[in-house]
Amino acid sequence: MNDRIKIVQNIMGANDQIASENRSKLLASNTFSINMMASPGAGKTSLIEQTIPQLKEKYNVAVVDGDIATSIDADRAAAAGATAVQINTGGECHLDAVMLKQALGKIDLPAMDLLIVENVGNLICPSSFQLGTHKSVLIASIPEGDDKPYKYPGMYRGVDVLIINKIDLMPYIPFKMDYFKKGVEILNPGLETFTVSCQTGEGIPGWISWLEEHIDQSKEK
Amino acid sequence: MNDRIKIVQNIMGANDQIASENRSKLLASNTFSINMMASPGAGKTSLIEQTIPQLKEKYNVAVVDGDIATSIDADRAAAAGATAVQINTGGECHLDAVMLKQALGKIDLPAMDLLIVENVGNLICPSSFQLGTHKSVLIASIPEGDDKPYKYPGMYRGVDVLIINKIDLMPYIPFKMDYFKKGVEILNPGLETFTVSCQTGEGIPGWISWLEEHIDQSKEK
Repeated sequence: MNDRIKIVQNIMGANDQIASENRSKLLASNTFSINMMASPGAGKTSLIEQTIPQLKEKYNVAVVDGDIATSIDADRAAAAGATAVQINTGGECHLDAVMLKQALGKIDLPAMDLLIVENVGNLICPSSFQLGTHKSVLIASIPEGDDKPYKYPGMYRGVDVLIINKIDLMPYIPFKMDYFKKGVEILNPGLETFTVSCQTGEGIPGWISWLEEHIDQSKEK
Repeated sequence: MNDRIKIVQNIMGANDQIASENRSKLLASNTFSINMMASPGAGKTSLIEQTIPQLKEKYNVAVVDGDIATSIDADRAAAAGATAVQINTGGECHLDAVMLKQALGKIDLPAMDLLIVENVGNLICPSSFQLGTHKSVLIASIPEGDDKPYKYPGMYRGVDVLIINKIDLMPYIPFKMDYFKKGVEILNPGLETFTVSCQTGEGIPGWISWLEEHIDQSKEK
């Protein structure tokens, strides 16, 4: 085993240990949590903006936003009604479990029903780092093109839910939905999928129902 | 200095050394070269498909395509008329100088006037690795949103040319061009910029002229 492999294994082992601690904390507080991943600009923050107003009468929602720089996303999540914590990774291309642990320390978790972690915009690196959240959600968007499952298999393989966003742009873009879905099916058979538009609101109710169901299940435990 | 910093410095030092060798090779063969970077789906391959047919009567063009998996992009570049070499990074989120060196070994460089390196789709990691090419070109696209320069400053700061693609989608997307350009100007004042649509061909002639000018300058040296 060469040094490089050993170092990578040590980093991942330490990360998974902290991820497991994060999960215990989330379970203890009955807070359902998702790790939201996507390309830059696929619509993570827009989906959060669509989601929070529809949940906030019934649930308390916290958002942890990971970005290289700025607090633009956390500001948008806070404006939509969430408790928001910004993590600036300072160049790192993904969130890791330690960063999430630090952010969780700033949130009154027992008061929260849902935690949304908005990862750094990147289809590669975030998929390698467990955070301790319950479910991983990938947002794809029509303008990214129909070949993305084939080109980013690691990301598509590892997620629990897929949201296909910007469906309102279908008339203007050459996107073959059958080809896209065939690629997803090969990598992640039966993957739960919602097709939405954060601009028009189309398809959002199905996503909200899924979230509510999982939040309520977490409460019952 | 801790171990982690030392390791990163060693990796970067080795990379820069190989990048410098790549550059010498490209200079010796009078081949003008660009490192094309972008988010997944911003239009790197589409721009290559638009570019090659307009150059191939006059110039020989080679394309090196970096992807996690598949040869979809190299197949498209070859179909457009280029000599194409695919690099599968096997999970790595960027190309590095060693990967390019290996790809250059498969190309008859003295016969080539232009080398286009299509990096892995990622707005973060590729900006940290010099490859040895003459110019770095970033493709932004309208659907990614107008906040990207603010959120990915490392990428926007380090490039020589910016191409704003998918301008045909402006009527359907809330994208504030002034806000976007203000962010670019702060990070990279006076950055050479082309606004194009790879769907309609709008703006492509300006980009082609820029390329021809630089290819001809490399030949004169």
